[in-house]
Amino acid sequence: MNITDPRIAIVGVGRMGANMARRLKDVGATVAAVFDNRRGVAEELAAELGCAAPGTLAEVTAAADVILTVVTDDAAMRGIFGPVGDSLLSGAGGRTFINCATLSPAVHGEVAAACSAVGAQALEACMASSIQQAREGTLYLMVGGEESVFRKVGPILDSLSKSLRHVGGIGEAAKVKALVNMVMNINTAGLAEGLGLGAALGLDLAMLREVFSQTGANSRVLETDGGDMIDREHDCYFSAAHAAKDSGIANDLARQAGVAVPLSNATEAQYRKLIDLGRGELDKSAVAELTFPGRAGF
Amino acid sequence: MNITDPRIAIVGVGRMGANMARRLKDVGATVAAVFDNRRGVAEELAAELGCAAPGTLAEVTAAADVILTVVTDDAAMRGIFGPVGDSLLSGAGGRTFINCATLSPAVHGEVAAACSAVGAQALEACMASSIQQAREGTLYLMVGGEESVFRKVGPILDSLSKSLRHVGGIGEAAKVKALVNMVMNINTAGLAEGLGLGAALGLDLAMLREVFSQTGANSRVLETDGGDMIDREHDCYFSAAHAAKDSGIANDLARQAGVAVPLSNATEAQYRKLIDLGRGELDKSAVAELTFPGRAGF
Repeated sequence: MNITDPRIAIVGVGRMGANMARRLKDVGATVAAVFDNRRGVAEELAAELGCAAPGTLAEVTAAADVILTVVTDDAAMRGIFGPVGDSLLSGAGGRTFINCATLSPAVHGEVAAACSAVGAQALEACMASSIQQAREGTLYLMVGGEESVFRKVGPILDSLSKSLRHVGGIGEAAKVKALVNMVMNINTAGLAEGLGLGAALGLDLAMLREVFSQTGANSRVLETDGGDMIDREHDCYFSAAHAAKDSGIANDLARQAGVAVPLSNATEAQYRKLIDLGRGELDKSAVAELTFPGRAGF
Repeated sequence: MNITDPRIAIVGVGRMGANMARRLKDVGATVAAVFDNRRGVAEELAAELGCAAPGTLAEVTAAADVILTVVTDDAAMRGIFGPVGDSLLSGAGGRTFINCATLSPAVHGEVAAACSAVGAQALEACMASSIQQAREGTLYLMVGGEESVFRKVGPILDSLSKSLRHVGGIGEAAKVKALVNMVMNINTAGLAEGLGLGAALGLDLAMLREVFSQTGANSRVLETDGGDMIDREHDCYFSAAHAAKDSGIANDLARQAGVAVPLSNATEAQYRKLIDLGRGELDKSAVAELTFPGRAGF
């Protein structure tokens, strides 16, 4: 497959999906169609990219050879691959779906089976990266699915990522992704406790953050979220609602596997508290609003 | 003060204290005496260093100008600075104490006041480092206490550390140290959950660890403890019992300050569970024994 050959569609053009579409256009791929539940969002992006913005999922499938899906959660995923009504599965014979949302591993399996039943193929491509990396084609991509399908769409995946890894069969990448976000969220909620308690003790937080960075308390989230927690800068890169969802996926897997994960359970509870306070749309760094003195309740 | 001038004693010569004594000897300092509750341990080190191993704390104070204390916990610290019986305070006028144990901040304050009452001075010097760094004189040291005392013993502190920082008055360094270990312990217990669940899901753990290292799940403890958790290599660098103690200090501070720290509470509970299982002397990485399938109960 040459990157210019297949007609590509993107379903779910929030900030990640839209930037992936822009990147594909930049590298000369044929972006044929974009789709979003928010019709206006899709039409605006279609105008920018010079492509179609079909009104139905069946039309998306008709317009493309390879369809990337970047939806929010399990329910949305089941919605676009529904067995009845408007569905990406309509006339999907020969199509390849690359499913990029962070979902429960079992849902990737369900979707792949439904695709197979209509003569289509499915891969999961889990992203552990930011909106900016999507725009620049430097995503960290973990792919699950058949090796032959992975190789076939290799040029598309390559153009989106700087680090591409085939981790196993369908559902395996979602497991890895769930664990990455589980540990990231624990480290984030834990950092919020450390900095929040430091604030309560009257410590110099710039000093504390720097000491953390030079000791066993250092972490990637200290780099990305430490300053934001101190400055109450919670513009969304990865939302508290997403953090709750992803920790929830991991905690469900743990329950099924009989593994006790008390820290991850406590982390999910913190993020659910943010949602209950109506602040699920803030960045995950907003968990510090629950631990810094005088901030609670916003 | 020249590094060769003051007579130095070290009280509490476990692996950290012993390596600090060796390092001081290496740089030409006058190591006059070492002391430990385990008399044989002190005598062996004294023979190695060619110094005294007095049988009482009062003799230690008599033999030295500057006394470093490196004991295990609050109770041990109150024991060596007791108001009655054998005590470092006996004849301590003019002496300078450098207290290196990780203690509750309030205990550093008590000890400093008791020293002041007998005409001695006290600093706290909290270490966020390993036994190996103690041997090499590359400790990360955070010092609390009076600026003038800090300056006076500067050559001693410099010879022990590669990063030396005066963070404030007595008790302030202990607060920073408690927060460092609180966050480190959370990240460690959280990593154990991620790797343990990965094992339960049948994932390739070398792959998972490498993915963690390249994503938001990365942390210092992933570097130091990730492999040990997978390999069940729990030789002690920083014990589970110490982790429980230090998280406990932070959680007490949080209770007093009215800050909710659910992850740190869950972390302390995990380390207390290791102690209850009779495994408190293992390295903190042993928390993974609680989360990997088939390991529980050792």
